[in-house]
Amino acid sequence: DGTGRVVLVGGGPGATDLLTLRGRRALAEADVVVTDRLGPRSVLAELPPDVEVVDVGKRPDHHPVPQDEINRILVDRAGRGLTVVRLKGGDPFVYGRGGEEVLACRTAGVPVEVVPGISSALAVPAAAGIPLTHRGTVAAVHVVNGHDGLDEAARTALREGSATVVVLMGVAALEQMAAEAVAHGADPATPVAVVENGTTDRQRTTRAPLHAIAERARAAGVRAPAIVVMGAVAAEGLLGPACDAATRVPAATGTSTLPVGAAS
Amino acid sequence: DGTGRVVLVGGGPGATDLLTLRGRRALAEADVVVTDRLGPRSVLAELPPDVEVVDVGKRPDHHPVPQDEINRILVDRAGRGLTVVRLKGGDPFVYGRGGEEVLACRTAGVPVEVVPGISSALAVPAAAGIPLTHRGTVAAVHVVNGHDGLDEAARTALREGSATVVVLMGVAALEQMAAEAVAHGADPATPVAVVENGTTDRQRTTRAPLHAIAERARAAGVRAPAIVVMGAVAAEGLLGPACDAATRVPAATGTSTLPVGAAS
Repeated sequence: DGTGRVVLVGGGPGATDLLTLRGRRALAEADVVVTDRLGPRSVLAELPPDVEVVDVGKRPDHHPVPQDEINRILVDRAGRGLTVVRLKGGDPFVYGRGGEEVLACRTAGVPVEVVPGISSALAVPAAAGIPLTHRGTVAAVHVVNGHDGLDEAARTALREGSATVVVLMGVAALEQMAAEAVAHGADPATPVAVVENGTTDRQRTTRAPLHAIAERARAAGVRAPAIVVMGAVAAEGLLGPACDAATRVPAATGTSTLPVGAAS
Repeated sequence: DGTGRVVLVGGGPGATDLLTLRGRRALAEADVVVTDRLGPRSVLAELPPDVEVVDVGKRPDHHPVPQDEINRILVDRAGRGLTVVRLKGGDPFVYGRGGEEVLACRTAGVPVEVVPGISSALAVPAAAGIPLTHRGTVAAVHVVNGHDGLDEAARTALREGSATVVVLMGVAALEQMAAEAVAHGADPATPVAVVENGTTDRQRTTRAPLHAIAERARAAGVRAPAIVVMGAVAAEGLLGPACDAATRVPAATGTSTLPVGAAS
């Protein structure tokens, strides 16, 4: 109808079929898709050829596009009357900087909508067979970003054993976080699981107690991207034998790709 | 192939199109769907007539079916060689008791798979235009269940202002939680938002500072189901004017129902 708009779509942790139906519909209506390096990138190959794809995850000099430039692109395209989908990994409002993009659009008078997505903080532990809450074990969840380290509430959660602590982007800071938690009173035997490449066919889980996880991860060659889960729910065998194998979320395959052109 | 199995599907917060593509496919393959009163119940009406629907959310005496009986139903139907979908609101592993069902299936030797879903803890704040993390404001999220009240980590998060606190099923305990938070050092001016019926067309957001939220909610007649968000991100106008209206997630409508019979 000639009015441009922006839809921030949470694409989930990477597997194409962990996108929501609403997200798929938004992609089917897009004139422009602005994407980065996380999330279900395989959907890009299935977009009709007349859809403009702007990849803000890398530039010729290999640095990501700054946030204010991304904001400018969204507002510019919508201002030309286009329907712009901003495709993000995970959820736009959980470390997705979606709030900044909503604010930029509103400031420019551009209609903006948010489609929630499945956060890696939830999906990756699930794919490794780790429940974030479990009756009789733990009833709260604390999510932090490894770049910021453990906040005081995370330290409290680990000391009390009262909440599962999930760390996104936590590989680089793993040693420091584990030492910090123990120094602040956490039980060194607290189970920890590090899940690399969650929900893909390269998924791998490395487990050890808090006091040993950094060394174990180093020995195993653990690398980003990975999610770290700290707390009783990360114990091997909590849900019975063969935990990882039996609840493993299969990777998206060639037969389960996204029919993005087909509106449903 | 004659082998029964169980798929725990996270159905999301209620809107049909916030189900994932993988969840939809699982429903399309189901011989039996075991459901309760939360999540996308409208999909039930679209199942083929030969699919058995077991509603464990209510019994003739109006009590929900106990968890061990649900576990028994899952194992029994799978044992007959059927494909059983256990459709849950939100995510199976975030207050969904999915861990218990996985354990029951494994103990019985039944293959079980988990399909993550969008937790109300994420989707409902998003629908109200509230980012759970926001650059320069807050970088951690703590999720608790109102039935359990605030744990020590939640109190710490509120005192420090370092994490957004999301309370599921928090209406009944709102007054007590708010008083407890202030008593433990939280700033009485901490913004709080209560979002009723999130992602539906009856969605309503009530806001007040921590010290006044219980009275404001009572005056407004706030009732369950609702999600409570405590922290700086809950401030009105954080993302600019007309916050709720512009990012409001539309309710599922008659035109966006789930073509569950059509495998994609």
